[in-house]
Amino acid sequence: MINIAILGFGVVGSGTAEVITKNRDVIKEKTNADITIKHILDLRDFPGSPYEALITHDFNEILNDSEIDIVVEAMGGAHPAYDFSKAALEAGKNVVTSNKLVVAQFGTELLEIAKKNGVRYLFEASVGGGIPIIKPMMTDLAQNRIDGVSGILNGTTNYILTQMSENGASFDEALKEAQAKGYAEADPTSDIEGHDAARKIVILAALAYGKLIAPNNIHCEGITKIDSKDVAFAEKLNGYSIKLIGHAEKADDKILAFVSPRLIPEANPLHDISDVFNGILVKCDMLGDAMFYGRGAGKLPTASAVVSDIIDIAIKSEMKAECAKWTDAEKDDIAPISNYVCAHYFRIEGCPKCMGKVFDDVESCISENGECAFITKPMTEADALASEKAFAENGIKVLSRIRVL
Amino acid sequence: MINIAILGFGVVGSGTAEVITKNRDVIKEKTNADITIKHILDLRDFPGSPYEALITHDFNEILNDSEIDIVVEAMGGAHPAYDFSKAALEAGKNVVTSNKLVVAQFGTELLEIAKKNGVRYLFEASVGGGIPIIKPMMTDLAQNRIDGVSGILNGTTNYILTQMSENGASFDEALKEAQAKGYAEADPTSDIEGHDAARKIVILAALAYGKLIAPNNIHCEGITKIDSKDVAFAEKLNGYSIKLIGHAEKADDKILAFVSPRLIPEANPLHDISDVFNGILVKCDMLGDAMFYGRGAGKLPTASAVVSDIIDIAIKSEMKAECAKWTDAEKDDIAPISNYVCAHYFRIEGCPKCMGKVFDDVESCISENGECAFITKPMTEADALASEKAFAENGIKVLSRIRVL
Repeated sequence: MINIAILGFGVVGSGTAEVITKNRDVIKEKTNADITIKHILDLRDFPGSPYEALITHDFNEILNDSEIDIVVEAMGGAHPAYDFSKAALEAGKNVVTSNKLVVAQFGTELLEIAKKNGVRYLFEASVGGGIPIIKPMMTDLAQNRIDGVSGILNGTTNYILTQMSENGASFDEALKEAQAKGYAEADPTSDIEGHDAARKIVILAALAYGKLIAPNNIHCEGITKIDSKDVAFAEKLNGYSIKLIGHAEKADDKILAFVSPRLIPEANPLHDISDVFNGILVKCDMLGDAMFYGRGAGKLPTASAVVSDIIDIAIKSEMKAECAKWTDAEKDDIAPISNYVCAHYFRIEGCPKCMGKVFDDVESCISENGECAFITKPMTEADALASEKAFAENGIKVLSRIRVL
Repeated sequence: MINIAILGFGVVGSGTAEVITKNRDVIKEKTNADITIKHILDLRDFPGSPYEALITHDFNEILNDSEIDIVVEAMGGAHPAYDFSKAALEAGKNVVTSNKLVVAQFGTELLEIAKKNGVRYLFEASVGGGIPIIKPMMTDLAQNRIDGVSGILNGTTNYILTQMSENGASFDEALKEAQAKGYAEADPTSDIEGHDAARKIVILAALAYGKLIAPNNIHCEGITKIDSKDVAFAEKLNGYSIKLIGHAEKADDKILAFVSPRLIPEANPLHDISDVFNGILVKCDMLGDAMFYGRGAGKLPTASAVVSDIIDIAIKSEMKAECAKWTDAEKDDIAPISNYVCAHYFRIEGCPKCMGKVFDDVESCISENGECAFITKPMTEADALASEKAFAENGIKVLSRIRVL
């Protein structure tokens, strides 16, 4: 039997309790793991809840309970989530979290502490909600060099972009609808500016390349500047969809990671992933492309991932601690985006002739209502920026530039 | 260090050696597993191959070598693959295989022998080629009840159906092209009649529901009767694609598994999986839909999955044997397809009026060149069969009937 304590009885914490309670039989049958919730830490009391008796307001009660094998950190935010996780690991308890902020910011330190104390720090739920992606990258794909990872990592922005594409909604309309449906928070900044996706892609990059880059050290562009015209032009140009993509790859010996909207070609399996679903495409040298798809957020999906980590600890209790292995990235480990090569979508004021003042040759081009949209040949980010400048020098307004995946 | 022997140096066996050799450094770095190939069993000699010195023609050399921890069975076929696997497990060696025929036919017995001998019998490569699906179903999804599994499990038929859809090719033309490209064998029966997919779906069903059904005890329909007209009508009716699907679900206390062509709605993530790619959609009660996508066949993808099993054994050497748990399905465990409910696509000779002689109300209908294609409301298989009979009694020829996913 494995005893756990849950820190935070909000969406993820209560979902975790629900999954463990509802599926206790199937978990035991499939894995022999017998999970008991012993404490739940929250500021509130939850009178009448079936878990009422387990509620405590004192973290020390959990920390000092030698029967607790696993602490589930489902508080969110940096503090005290980080501090409690650290204390639990130092006390020789395994920690499972859904908190991408803490993993992306303090993961290296917490993994080190876990290793030193012979326990594990697991975070399957921190990326891709319920989708199994962290453990598959650590184990099932370990015999592959990772050529690149591209993911739709944020359900809120994917919902907004889907609404813009399917219903021709403007960004503002789609955001309001997402808020009305509970898919976006009252302050949606972290989602729509790409910060959430940035935390997730640095975690995936660390698993792929062994170095954790601080999220604010990567180029991060959200979707606030995407116009419904861009969505329509992209579709017309060659059936492209527009998605917010977290991307990481090895560039020589450095790691290039960034978040930005991307035009997705029809043949790419990420093309049709819509609504709040996430998808993560992993390019492997032996296996080729593999994609993991599913619900990237939500109470029970996220809790499902949390419980998969609990089970993993329960069934591997005989093993020495087996954690993700990475170190913090140094400045020299990080490749600048300026050398990144891809085709670019431009939307400019004017006609194809205006386009011709900067580009001799493009892949495809559409002109409508005094605007011209086109896809360039593959070029570096630096050259794309130089082209923007060249348009400006010719008095031509660049309305949008979006990288093509 | 872990010593392995490879049985059969064909596509999968030589691919396994290639993955281990080429990615030795990355495997060691990520997992600490240090894999050494000590013997390779084959009838041939491979003079000049870097593995020449490892070749043996005598299985007993492997069986009696106490240094061999893992036997990789990559021979294919039932015998002697089964016999060698059994002997290896009885000798206390772990066995890893890509052989779906052996797993589907003898898996229960081999898993029991493995358990008795404290070793493991793993078969990640038996389903979905390189896609991680077996281990995710055993571990990452273990906290979910599986509501159903639907998969594009055979790359050859998916390539053929893609050609029929994208290029309007006939089945025969598409098959010939698949053979020319090496995607289909000279005798393609096992692929095109669905036998290969049947072996894979019974394995997935066993993982989901704990009972292994013999592949020839499930309803199995291939793609040989699919006409290019069906592909075109399906697309016109509502953007459906046609895929060969292995499907399993729990029907009351029984397991319903079958293989048949299905119309796939646009919103289903399996809709756009084309060419030789596979995709497996797992419906989970907590996580919701999860899909695993990638190369379902090929030398290095399949070998990648084989090596992931080897790594799993290497890194869990401290653990007690942890194997799939299932028993053989009894007759009573198997649900007949007759109660299965889904919408059906019909193509009949005649016009909508002819359709009206059997169906009052359908979901959608197209009539062209003296033929009428339509999608029914959801109905049982038994009722669908009765409708076929009713058409016949009215002198109306039913040209196709395909289930809708």
